[in-house]
Amino acid sequence: MFRSAEIIAVGSELLLGQICNTNAQFLSKQLAELGINVYFHTVVGDNPDRLTTAIHTAKKRADLLIFTGGLGPTKDDLTKETISKVLQKNLVMDNEALTNIEAYYQKTKRTMSENNKKQAIVLEGSTVLPNDYGMAPGMALTGQNHSYMLLPGPPKELQPMFLNYGREFILSKLGVKEQIVSKVLRFFGIGESQLETDIDDLIEQQTNPTIAPLAGDHEVTLRLTAKHHSEEEANRLISVTEKLIQARVGEHFYGYDEDTIFSVLFGKIQHSHYTLSSAESLTGGLFSEKMTAFTGASEVIEGGIVCYTNDIKHKVLGVSEQTLEQYGAVSEECAAEMAEQVKKLFKTDIGVSFTGVAGPGMMEGKPVGTVFIGLALPDGRTMVHSIRLAGGRDSIRQRTVKYGCHFLLKELFKSS
Amino acid sequence: MFRSAEIIAVGSELLLGQICNTNAQFLSKQLAELGINVYFHTVVGDNPDRLTTAIHTAKKRADLLIFTGGLGPTKDDLTKETISKVLQKNLVMDNEALTNIEAYYQKTKRTMSENNKKQAIVLEGSTVLPNDYGMAPGMALTGQNHSYMLLPGPPKELQPMFLNYGREFILSKLGVKEQIVSKVLRFFGIGESQLETDIDDLIEQQTNPTIAPLAGDHEVTLRLTAKHHSEEEANRLISVTEKLIQARVGEHFYGYDEDTIFSVLFGKIQHSHYTLSSAESLTGGLFSEKMTAFTGASEVIEGGIVCYTNDIKHKVLGVSEQTLEQYGAVSEECAAEMAEQVKKLFKTDIGVSFTGVAGPGMMEGKPVGTVFIGLALPDGRTMVHSIRLAGGRDSIRQRTVKYGCHFLLKELFKSS
Repeated sequence: MFRSAEIIAVGSELLLGQICNTNAQFLSKQLAELGINVYFHTVVGDNPDRLTTAIHTAKKRADLLIFTGGLGPTKDDLTKETISKVLQKNLVMDNEALTNIEAYYQKTKRTMSENNKKQAIVLEGSTVLPNDYGMAPGMALTGQNHSYMLLPGPPKELQPMFLNYGREFILSKLGVKEQIVSKVLRFFGIGESQLETDIDDLIEQQTNPTIAPLAGDHEVTLRLTAKHHSEEEANRLISVTEKLIQARVGEHFYGYDEDTIFSVLFGKIQHSHYTLSSAESLTGGLFSEKMTAFTGASEVIEGGIVCYTNDIKHKVLGVSEQTLEQYGAVSEECAAEMAEQVKKLFKTDIGVSFTGVAGPGMMEGKPVGTVFIGLALPDGRTMVHSIRLAGGRDSIRQRTVKYGCHFLLKELFKSS
Repeated sequence: MFRSAEIIAVGSELLLGQICNTNAQFLSKQLAELGINVYFHTVVGDNPDRLTTAIHTAKKRADLLIFTGGLGPTKDDLTKETISKVLQKNLVMDNEALTNIEAYYQKTKRTMSENNKKQAIVLEGSTVLPNDYGMAPGMALTGQNHSYMLLPGPPKELQPMFLNYGREFILSKLGVKEQIVSKVLRFFGIGESQLETDIDDLIEQQTNPTIAPLAGDHEVTLRLTAKHHSEEEANRLISVTEKLIQARVGEHFYGYDEDTIFSVLFGKIQHSHYTLSSAESLTGGLFSEKMTAFTGASEVIEGGIVCYTNDIKHKVLGVSEQTLEQYGAVSEECAAEMAEQVKKLFKTDIGVSFTGVAGPGMMEGKPVGTVFIGLALPDGRTMVHSIRLAGGRDSIRQRTVKYGCHFLLKELFKSS
């Protein structure tokens, strides 16, 4: 049973500033949700003496020590070796982990080096945390007054390992009595301060569930967290508060928890048995790439045309020369024709188009951030949305495709 | 004169995971360039007792302590109050800082609260570091065996303050003699452990420059860092070592420092005055999106076709029905035709194609990770590379486009 944790990141690349300690942020958030206080983060290099010092210091001020990094195959990777010395625990070969590593090499038809075997060695008596996205397994271990968890450095390995296995280990030690239930509501097309103003009084009054806004990635989320010994009641509390929120800002709501605006749109189209194609100019294939990222994409997505030049817009996609000459490629008229043409050419139910100025320079006399999004819909209607975005090239492209999803989702919700 | 530093970030929002400690990354990079070793980062909350402990711990292991955050106007902000107690230094009003804060309020026509005056209070005897982008001034102070620097938390205030004033303070203390020069070599298509095995003896023997490998994002980098009082000589030392490395693993090398395999390929095509188009199946537009991310893309990229279904491969792109029937879409033959067809249709010098199985299920009896990459080259030759990738859907797609860049780059380097 423990109430406070320290996160110790091991890796000289952090101390050289080559990477940022995003793992500490991720784990801190997770531990906060579990009600465990994190009082310190420490970062230490690939040096056994300094790591040993850090362990001794942390033991004085926390009862759960979580280590990230240093589980790799190279000489620099010495987290488990150092911990084994400090705790006087042996290192033993874990056969299951070894089998996983060997399978990985067989599958990729590469030769396994002796170094890689080192990754299957674990602290004796520890619970092995499987690595579903890499080779180095994690470990969790309970000593007399402290518990220890070792996680791999790469976030794409660490995050699923913690969520799928590490969290459970901690919960089992906590002997949790109160159920903590969380739900994230996701919004697009509204700024954080506007959203907060709109539900200011709710945020102030609510204590169970709490309402925590967070902005990021051109979106805003609200996390509702309820505590109750009955999980059912915790869920009910959340649902009551959600209704109050939806009544105020529901038009910007698009999904829950791990949803993305892409996954929600993809699901909606798939569920409606529609097919989709896209004609992309300034976004260069980004929309298509996002929509084909999902399993089952081939049922939904026929494909698309990236028409970066006027020549391709005309000759391959079939936008009329007259439209391009009279209105330009960055125009409502061109966006409409692009969407209609790709829908026709690819024989899909829906055609989406993106044309605009990503910058850095003006185009056809139109300022950077001018964007037209065309939707050729299943019922034969064509709509064009015109938006004006600030920011750099990448940010304009990213937000353009999200706005496309937002507009299309609204139409699909209307007609369903 | 000091040789090692510890960065102490103060702020409960870091321990709750609300923000990431990007200041530590920024400062670490800066200190590395100045030749100061950073052995530890510490993050501590807005709590005077725990901050006091952290200061005592840091004093034992570093001679420059850099604090970030906790200089604001609210009750939570207690960095300078705590340091004043630990160092037994008085806090005094700094009139220049006060004038700046008052001017800020006059400029923005807001009323200044008493709290804000608190921000103009500094440690007695310290060098005040002006804040050109906010209100709280920074401080630098030299004690008997240690130096202390206090910087504000918001990165947009901290970064210019450090670059314009903090750095100078450190340089003046260092009486810099040695120049530190760093160069990053970037590799693709070779694993970290293989690369390390290939140059193991070089890594062991080298002390100036040092060679530090780092893996990430399906790539491996080597950072060479040389120290010498003459910058020219430091550069020469790096260049000698680089030649030794290139002789062994040069075939996997693609660029330096902030290069990406996309920026290098884009630059190479642009420089050769070639034009490019792409036909993408499993990658769904990812290659096209990456290549259109650069300023000037319209000179180089005509566009592409995302052909997610066989129907589109045939009807829009013009792959022959016979190829699709006889060999399937996931085949060398189809990849070759896709590259040739898009090159012809878009009238470009180069056509690139991607077809394969991203998963999760098999396709045409071919296992997940089977990928064919077609290159229709300016000299009329067509080549197809077949690779086999492990991992999930997203990882397969990401690496597929990087392999495409890698193979095309090799051809372009050969012919130039």
